[in-house]
Amino acid sequence: MQAVGIVVEYNPFHNGHAYHLKQAKKVAQADIVIAVMSGTFLQRGEPAMVDKWTRTKMALAGGVDIVIELPYVYSTAPASDFAKGAISLLSAVGCESFAFGSENGSIQPFLNTFELIDHNRSEYDILIKESLKTGASYPKSLHYAYEQLSQKFPAPYIDLAQPNNILGFHYLEAAKSLGSHIKPLTIPRIAAGYHDVLKEDSSIASATGIRKALASTSSLQSVQNVVPESTFDFLADWYNKYNHFASWERFWPLLQFTIIRHTPSELTRYAEVTEGIENAIVKAAKTSNSFNSFMEKVKSKRYTWTRLQRMITHIYTGFTKEQLQSFEQPTFIRLLGMSSKGQAYIGKHKKDIELPLISRVAATNDAMLAIDIHAAELYNLSIEQGTKDRPLPKDYQTPPIRC
Amino acid sequence: MQAVGIVVEYNPFHNGHAYHLKQAKKVAQADIVIAVMSGTFLQRGEPAMVDKWTRTKMALAGGVDIVIELPYVYSTAPASDFAKGAISLLSAVGCESFAFGSENGSIQPFLNTFELIDHNRSEYDILIKESLKTGASYPKSLHYAYEQLSQKFPAPYIDLAQPNNILGFHYLEAAKSLGSHIKPLTIPRIAAGYHDVLKEDSSIASATGIRKALASTSSLQSVQNVVPESTFDFLADWYNKYNHFASWERFWPLLQFTIIRHTPSELTRYAEVTEGIENAIVKAAKTSNSFNSFMEKVKSKRYTWTRLQRMITHIYTGFTKEQLQSFEQPTFIRLLGMSSKGQAYIGKHKKDIELPLISRVAATNDAMLAIDIHAAELYNLSIEQGTKDRPLPKDYQTPPIRC
Repeated sequence: MQAVGIVVEYNPFHNGHAYHLKQAKKVAQADIVIAVMSGTFLQRGEPAMVDKWTRTKMALAGGVDIVIELPYVYSTAPASDFAKGAISLLSAVGCESFAFGSENGSIQPFLNTFELIDHNRSEYDILIKESLKTGASYPKSLHYAYEQLSQKFPAPYIDLAQPNNILGFHYLEAAKSLGSHIKPLTIPRIAAGYHDVLKEDSSIASATGIRKALASTSSLQSVQNVVPESTFDFLADWYNKYNHFASWERFWPLLQFTIIRHTPSELTRYAEVTEGIENAIVKAAKTSNSFNSFMEKVKSKRYTWTRLQRMITHIYTGFTKEQLQSFEQPTFIRLLGMSSKGQAYIGKHKKDIELPLISRVAATNDAMLAIDIHAAELYNLSIEQGTKDRPLPKDYQTPPIRC
Repeated sequence: MQAVGIVVEYNPFHNGHAYHLKQAKKVAQADIVIAVMSGTFLQRGEPAMVDKWTRTKMALAGGVDIVIELPYVYSTAPASDFAKGAISLLSAVGCESFAFGSENGSIQPFLNTFELIDHNRSEYDILIKESLKTGASYPKSLHYAYEQLSQKFPAPYIDLAQPNNILGFHYLEAAKSLGSHIKPLTIPRIAAGYHDVLKEDSSIASATGIRKALASTSSLQSVQNVVPESTFDFLADWYNKYNHFASWERFWPLLQFTIIRHTPSELTRYAEVTEGIENAIVKAAKTSNSFNSFMEKVKSKRYTWTRLQRMITHIYTGFTKEQLQSFEQPTFIRLLGMSSKGQAYIGKHKKDIELPLISRVAATNDAMLAIDIHAAELYNLSIEQGTKDRPLPKDYQTPPIRC
């Protein structure tokens, strides 16, 4: 049995994802699709709108055969570490290839770009530093260095200003740096830009657009056209129970208290919180009535919104630099869900899988896993507060979903 | 002008307090009464039911001439440190005497008890250790040691099982250890035991009884007989604005999140959290829906309820052992309120006052004061959340109340 891997967050699973996974299977000529999915907190530094179990159900209903969790250590990390965690898990679970959606849509320009940067690493690094010194953000500086290099050695390259091209590049880089034989594939993204809002006549929208639509209207109907029926039903079930979808705006009271409880200098203990920003964070928290107004006060040219949200995530969960930097690579494969074909795949390939497979968490003692469980506890508590007597499944007690 | 000092929390100010302060003035033959009052978090390890400014207004309306704040470092400390902070402030502000309410009601037995323990200190300490080894709580062990000693050297002593006698003893001890000339006086408490609930036909009730009555009924009328009209009006104003009185039960969502955000071992950083209790605290927080059910799970023979609540207070505010242990004695006198007679006293005695008088906090940079301001910020935030657009006075911007 051949497996193709994909890297997902499914926040929530929508028609674009359904298209992507069908294409991935087709292009890779694979029998099954394995998705490595962020758990409770995501790469953009946000809580997932619904919990990992609900998103696993969406994935399985949408055609994924195996869902494995991307640990918090990677799911909330900068793109390069995020990619490393994801690709090494897909590689360890035995995927022969992985497929990512990209604006570019063909793989050769990705390979060209990788070679260009890989062969000119020291010049590239100097160019980045030059740009950082002018006060530009890290992504902007990467882009500047890349522009300079690619003009020197002309070839078809990817446009590194496109968010999905960037991620794809990091996947490729991760595969190379891991020395993995996993084969990169890319699929052109259809319609819907990353940040676009919903269009009335389209069945494709970005997850960001869907979340915005859900935040601005109390009606789920507004997203019915752009998600599979199964996703719609899972969202409706969740909303009936909790009356909201998780977001920083909803978590703001707990976040605000948590920030203000610290002195500025204490905040610099937490992962990604660089010195110099701590005073602004505390001051903004003291004078804001909402997450959005808080972020408007903290944002600066120096940091991207996403980067700031990742700092906030680690402050919220309480993970320090020391804690998150202590890991070299994933130490386990946690199964969140499997179709019958996925179960057959696991049965057949069990011996070849390079990391311990975890399906019952309660029995496992692993430092990286302890972080995931802690993050899930805080996530669940944040949702449950104010919706008494509707407990979410306890993360460490929940077995993989089978369907 | 002669001043008598009293140590108060006024949570809330009631008829018993009004009686006590009149008696204090009379017994001391004083012109004015100076109260040193806990700010936001109190000696039993609880948030004050209304903020320090409202309680200051109650005190002034009830006849106190000067209200000075007992800093957090002392107001949330074990009885002996609480007493040290309070008595050294009353001494520094120039009080010739201090008067405390006690079950015993006359001062000689207090002096006898102090001498007994002071002269037999090493034997006393051995007896305490003996008792602690059997697993008894610290207060119980003190009591045991005291019983043993007092049988050996018979004289009229105080009953150290009575809560106000204990506090009084610590006041006396504090005055002696400070080498202060301030003269101790005591006034017999009338009616109402410490923990008694309200009696229908009485105008005297304990503050604990009043808080219980207010927590169990939505009607303020139930306490009208046992508080001065002014207190009643201040309570009513507060309730109209915030729709609740501060308590751990109200703060539970923030407290629960804060506890669970920590690993057990991190909790031992906080003041008074002794090793061995941290696992029980985290476990209980994870499985409780209310503060009371949490405390029922954490309580043990080893710790009094009050001691546990003080640990909780420091976890909530985030003050570590290191931070709170760094102070030798009060570094300032913070004025919360003054009557016209109080203002006259300050004017007359300004030169004799041994510590800097603080009335405008914004202009002051003091480590002990920074702790009070931080505690007040967290207290205010906890009350304001859920009652949008009703900000409490910012602690560092509020000048003393004059009337």
